[in-house]
Amino acid sequence: MAIITLTTDFGSRDGYVGAMKGVLVRIGREPMIVDISHDIPRGDIAHAAWVVKTACREFPADTIHIVVVDPGVGGARRGVVLDAQGQYYVGPDNGVFSYLTPYWARAIENVRIMAPEVSHTFHGRDIFATVAAALALKIDPAAIGARVELEGTLPWGPRPEGVGRVVHVDHYGNLVTDLPAEEAGEAVTIAGRRLPVVETYESVLPNELLAYVGSQKTIEVAVRDGRADRVLDAPRGTSIEPATVGSEYR
Amino acid sequence: MAIITLTTDFGSRDGYVGAMKGVLVRIGREPMIVDISHDIPRGDIAHAAWVVKTACREFPADTIHIVVVDPGVGGARRGVVLDAQGQYYVGPDNGVFSYLTPYWARAIENVRIMAPEVSHTFHGRDIFATVAAALALKIDPAAIGARVELEGTLPWGPRPEGVGRVVHVDHYGNLVTDLPAEEAGEAVTIAGRRLPVVETYESVLPNELLAYVGSQKTIEVAVRDGRADRVLDAPRGTSIEPATVGSEYR
Amino acid sequence: MAIITLTTDFGSRDGYVGAMKGVLVRIGREPMIVDISHDIPRGDIAHAAWVVKTACREFPADTIHIVVVDPGVGGARRGVVLDAQGQYYVGPDNGVFSYLTPYWARAIENVRIMAPEVSHTFHGRDIFATVAAALALKIDPAAIGARVELEGTLPWGPRPEGVGRVVHVDHYGNLVTDLPAEEAGEAVTIAGRRLPVVETYESVLPNELLAYVGSQKTIEVAVRDGRADRVLDAPRGTSIEPATVGSEYR
Repeated sequence: MAIITLTTDFGSRDGYVGAMKGVLVRIGREPMIVDISHDIPRGDIAHAAWVVKTACREFPADTIHIVVVDPGVGGARRGVVLDAQGQYYVGPDNGVFSYLTPYWARAIENVRIMAPEVSHTFHGRDIFATVAAALALKIDPAAIGARVELEGTLPWGPRPEGVGRVVHVDHYGNLVTDLPAEEAGEAVTIAGRRLPVVETYESVLPNELLAYVGSQKTIEVAVRDGRADRVLDAPRGTSIEPATVGSEYR
Repeated sequence: MAIITLTTDFGSRDGYVGAMKGVLVRIGREPMIVDISHDIPRGDIAHAAWVVKTACREFPADTIHIVVVDPGVGGARRGVVLDAQGQYYVGPDNGVFSYLTPYWARAIENVRIMAPEVSHTFHGRDIFATVAAALALKIDPAAIGARVELEGTLPWGPRPEGVGRVVHVDHYGNLVTDLPAEEAGEAVTIAGRRLPVVETYESVLPNELLAYVGSQKTIEVAVRDGRADRVLDAPRGTSIEPATVGSEYR
Repeated sequence: MAIITLTTDFGSRDGYVGAMKGVLVRIGREPMIVDISHDIPRGDIAHAAWVVKTACREFPADTIHIVVVDPGVGGARRGVVLDAQGQYYVGPDNGVFSYLTPYWARAIENVRIMAPEVSHTFHGRDIFATVAAALALKIDPAAIGARVELEGTLPWGPRPEGVGRVVHVDHYGNLVTDLPAEEAGEAVTIAGRRLPVVETYESVLPNELLAYVGSQKTIEVAVRDGRADRVLDAPRGTSIEPATVGSEYR
C-alpha cells in the first residue's frame, strides 16, 4: 500500500486538510494517509523543515511526504519533488526541505498530473496532492519535470565548526539545537548561561535549566517541569557552544 | 475498503473521537478512517456546513461522512442519512448539510443499527458511528428509516441575485464568501471598502487587504501576511457585492 | 490488519507524533494507525487515564494502544505492557492505566524489541513504538519481560461507597464524575450546590447548571451553552453525592 504523509500549516478547523485527503484517496487508490502535523505555525518554513527532518526519515522506503507550508503560494516559488534516501517529498521550493541531503529534485511542470483547473491559492489540493497521488500510482518521476537544484534556504546557513544554533522550539518550550552531542562535552553555554549536560530531566531540580542530548542526538535546553523558551532569551538562531574552562564567568 | 470521514466539534483532548473510531473499527470491519476536523468551533453549525462542503466532495463515490456538530443532542432534532452525489452523510438534521444539493435523506429510525443502549449525550458514538458502520457493511439504505426532507437551515438564506455573503472565516482569518468569481468582475465592495480582485497574495503589499478567487471559485478577502477578520468588521453574513463605477465613493 | 492507537501529550506542532508513526509503519508492517489524542495536557496522567478508559475499550480485540504521557521519561519509572480484556496497552507505569481492570502486566525489559540506541527523552519512539510494532507482528508477550503488578496510581484512590469524585474536565468544560447513575437518584450535591439529574441539556434554561447521566453511565455536571468548570469551583477530586432530603439547605 502506498504511504502518504501530510505536514501543513492549515490548522485543524477548516476543510483544507480534508480536501487534500479526499484527492489522495480518490486519485491515489486509497493509500495509507498519515498526519504528521497541521499545526505548523503559519508560514513558518524553518519550523516545517525541522519537523520534516525529525519525523519523515522514520518512515519506510517509498513513503511519499507532502509538505505544504507555502506563504508564497501562487507567486514565483516553484513546486518540487525530491527523492532523498529512498523517500519522496512533495512541496514548495522555499526551504522546507533544507535538512534533506543528499537528494535529487525535479520541478513540478507536467500539467497532466495537476488538477484540471489549478487555483491560485490552494496548490496543496490542486498540485501537491495530485502529484503525490501520481507517485502513489508509480508514475515515472522523470514525467514530473526537469531536474533542478533547490533554491529555498533557511534564515541560518550551514553550521559553523564548533558552534550550534537553536533551530526549533518545541511544544514543551524546549530549545532544540543543531550542536551534535559529541561536540558538546560536559557543559554548554547559551545566552550567557553555562549549563551542564545531564542525562534526564530528573537530574536537576524542578524549574531549573538543563542541557541534555535530545532525540536527534543534538543538544537541547529545557526547564524541568517548565518552559525554557520563557526562561531563556534564546530565540531560533541563537548560538550554543561547548563550555570551556572559565566559561562560567562570561 | 470502506472510507469513513469524521467532522466534529469534540476537540482533541478527550476520548470522544477515539470512542467513535473504536466503534467504527469494531463494527465496520476496519474501514479507512479519515479525520477532516475535530476543531469545529463548539456548536457552530454554519462553520461545520462550510467545512463539509469544501472537503467532502473531493472524496470518491461511496465515501461515508460523519458530521457531529450537534448542540441539540438528545433533544428534538433528528438524526439523518443523506445520499448526495453518490456519497453518504450521517449526522443531525440541524443545518450542517445545508450546502449539499441535490440529495435524498432518511431519518435514522431503526434501533437495530444503534448501540444497544443509546446515551442521551453521545449520539456520535451510539447512533452516528453505528449507522456509518452499517453503511460500510453495505446495509440497504431503506433499512435506516423513512425518506424525509431536511429541516435544518443556516442563519443566512439562499443567496440573493448579484450579492454574496461572508459564509466562513478560516484559520488564516480569511473571509470566505459565496459570491461566484464570475459575478465579481474586477473589484468588490464589502464593509464599506472597495477591493480590487487580484490573482495572488503577492499582488498587494504586506498588510494590505485584497480580494481574490478562492479555492471554491468564490471571492475571498484577505490581508497579505495578516488577518482580514481583524482588519475588517465583516462577520459571517456580511454582504459583498461587485463594485460598480463610482462605488469607491460609498 | 493490526490496529494501533496513539494517546500522547506531544501536541500537534512537532515531529514527535510523526516519528512514532514512522516507526510503527516501518517495523509494524503497515498497521492501521488511529489517533486518539495528542493534546492531553502536558504530563497530566489522570487526564490520560480517563481518555484511555473512555476511548480504548470501544476497539476490537487485539488492538494495541500506545499511551505516552510520561513526565518521568528517562527516570526510574518503568515501561509496561498490559493485556486488559483482550487488548494490549503499552506505556509508562505511572498511573495512566489505572482504570483498566482486570489486567496482567509485563515490564518492558527485552532490549531486542527496542531501538538499537535508546534516547533518554523519547521512549515513545525508541521503546513504546517498537514494542507495539512487535506486538503487531505477533511476538509472544512472554518475550517482553517479567510479570509485574502496576505501581502507578492516581491522586484520588478507589471510590468510597456512596460518593463520587470529579475525575475529568472535558473540552466543553463539563465535569465528569465517577458517581454511577444508579447511585445518584434524582438529584446530586456538588460544591455546595444541589442539582437535579435531568435527561438532556435542553431540560434546563441556557446558562443553567445541570447534572445528567453521561456517556460512561456516570453523573456529569454541565452548564447549558456554557462551561461548568468556569461556573462551579469543583476541580478534579471534588466530591459529588446523591442529594438527600433537605440537602438543598446545605
